[in-house]
Amino acid sequence: MERMTESVAVIGAGSWGTALAMVLADNGHEVRLWGHNPNQINEINEYQTNKKYLPEVLLPEGIIGFSHLEEALEGVNTMVLAVPTKAIREVIRKINSIRKEPLTVVHVSKGIEPDTLLRISEMIEQEFSVNILDSVVVLSGPSHAEEVSLRHPTTVTVSSKNMNAAEKIQDLFINQNFRVYTNPDLVGVEIGGALKNIIALAAGITDGLGYGDNAKAALITRGLAEIARLGIKMGASPLTFSGLTGIGDLIATCTSVHSRNWRAGNLLGKGHKLQEVLDNIGMVVEGVRTTKAAKQLAEKYDVNMPITDVLYDVLFNDVNAKDAVDLLMARGKKNEMEDLTNVLEGDLNFVNGDNR
Amino acid sequence: MERMTESVAVIGAGSWGTALAMVLADNGHEVRLWGHNPNQINEINEYQTNKKYLPEVLLPEGIIGFSHLEEALEGVNTMVLAVPTKAIREVIRKINSIRKEPLTVVHVSKGIEPDTLLRISEMIEQEFSVNILDSVVVLSGPSHAEEVSLRHPTTVTVSSKNMNAAEKIQDLFINQNFRVYTNPDLVGVEIGGALKNIIALAAGITDGLGYGDNAKAALITRGLAEIARLGIKMGASPLTFSGLTGIGDLIATCTSVHSRNWRAGNLLGKGHKLQEVLDNIGMVVEGVRTTKAAKQLAEKYDVNMPITDVLYDVLFNDVNAKDAVDLLMARGKKNEMEDLTNVLEGDLNFVNGDNR
Repeated sequence: MERMTESVAVIGAGSWGTALAMVLADNGHEVRLWGHNPNQINEINEYQTNKKYLPEVLLPEGIIGFSHLEEALEGVNTMVLAVPTKAIREVIRKINSIRKEPLTVVHVSKGIEPDTLLRISEMIEQEFSVNILDSVVVLSGPSHAEEVSLRHPTTVTVSSKNMNAAEKIQDLFINQNFRVYTNPDLVGVEIGGALKNIIALAAGITDGLGYGDNAKAALITRGLAEIARLGIKMGASPLTFSGLTGIGDLIATCTSVHSRNWRAGNLLGKGHKLQEVLDNIGMVVEGVRTTKAAKQLAEKYDVNMPITDVLYDVLFNDVNAKDAVDLLMARGKKNEMEDLTNVLEGDLNFVNGDNR
Repeated sequence: MERMTESVAVIGAGSWGTALAMVLADNGHEVRLWGHNPNQINEINEYQTNKKYLPEVLLPEGIIGFSHLEEALEGVNTMVLAVPTKAIREVIRKINSIRKEPLTVVHVSKGIEPDTLLRISEMIEQEFSVNILDSVVVLSGPSHAEEVSLRHPTTVTVSSKNMNAAEKIQDLFINQNFRVYTNPDLVGVEIGGALKNIIALAAGITDGLGYGDNAKAALITRGLAEIARLGIKMGASPLTFSGLTGIGDLIATCTSVHSRNWRAGNLLGKGHKLQEVLDNIGMVVEGVRTTKAAKQLAEKYDVNMPITDVLYDVLFNDVNAKDAVDLLMARGKKNEMEDLTNVLEGDLNFVNGDNR
């Protein structure tokens, strides 16, 4: 079947925006890739490379770089928003000032806004002028940009309040290497993607402390339970946390050197200070901001989140990483099911419709 | 609180049996470690090492090696059975012929017996003379022997039909580095432990093919769903698959170079033949036998297990590993929830008591 091709804007020329631009270009779409740095855009257009973010790849034909938002958005109906969560509101305000026609927005960022405690799709809905926002779709799952750019097999999930829009985005992206599934549970997909970065930071710490794979597997297991407990209270389906955007993304982020959050945690575990670590990584470490938001969410929804608590203390209260993790590991609870039954309760509430 | 110490026999001086003997010796118990190779036992007693299996460690005082079963079992009430699943019946038959007093048996093997399709605890119950078997307890969870022997933080779960016996075993093993939880779901604990080796073989294959962390995370996610689908039909609680012996052990086994099953898969993915691979590993690769049993279980319980099917074909029908995995990755299903709803159905059946 011949694919319908179209012009798509990708806003944000970091590693993930660029890798997704490559998928779209591979599918025959005209991709308008926007970045705020003119030198980087020049490199993309002149040399077909984006060395700072994806040093190993040559960009395919069909990607055109833009450093002016207005030009990047000209004639497109679909925009992929791939900027750090911190920059989302500012970018949208600019778009509001230059755009009149409705847009479908695919967001691929992972986080929760501190203080407002909004998910990304909620932030987007809040900030966009109503008349220019068609639908918001989230694309999430276990997907290191480096591997996507090398066309290694990858599976992701799309979700939206408007599942017709989500299916349109599925068709836009899907190809032999990049498998796209739909899941109507928007809350679960966004919460899983955001909170996994917290667990990845913690996993990096245990690795930095030299604790090994047994400890890390236990941490990820408990991390999933903690994420699910919160997500279910926020209205998510427990099933989503067993899927690609839940345990799938959590595994990919906690066990790969590609993960910036894991790398940041790893440096913390080795005894470096937070500011040193952030300077060293040189790119945005979403988990740091998300830890703050998750701590607030845990209080708001009255959910027990021991890993988040411990990480918050390490990041913001100068608590020693080793002491904090040792305390976490030596918890007194003796029956494993105590940890898991909340998830089941949530499950039943979900099935009975109490959380919707 | 002072710990009650006792004499415990550990039957099987491979890496896992030896590491568990170390935990028991660290807790002050007298450990009687049996192995069939007199040279190895001699090494243990003379040099306090077991270089073939745990090259990096010196064994603690309190471990005594035996090459005669009768001597090893003298005066003990508790026996840890740490031999490959293939050898279990033979060892038990020997014990039947030499022992008269009742024993609590802690099994730490992972597998399903092909053809009989019995779980390990069922095999033990079937083979032991009734009058000398007190209780059977399983100990399972994310626990590479190498890390346990280095006293890295590790969490495991014990389960039994007789939870009093399980709690006694919990007390025997628990210490600061080795955290032991209870879970009454014996079926779930045993099935999770057995079937994870199949997914680890498959994960090794995708790594051997160079497919990367995105593909592996997707495979583990689907692997968990597949294990849970079967386990629930066999009467397990779905919650157990979200715990240490489910996703926890699956992660540890699929993402660590310590895993023999992963290493075997990795060599298969690089194009080596099964016999070559088994010769190269030189230790038992439980997943190969378990794949045969799981294939039979999937048929018996009418459960869809695509990863098991594909792996069976690679192992036993000479199907090319790359072709098989590519087929798996490119599955046509478009809605993620289709894969997961069976798990939910099982969940409700479990809650309603239909599976018990």
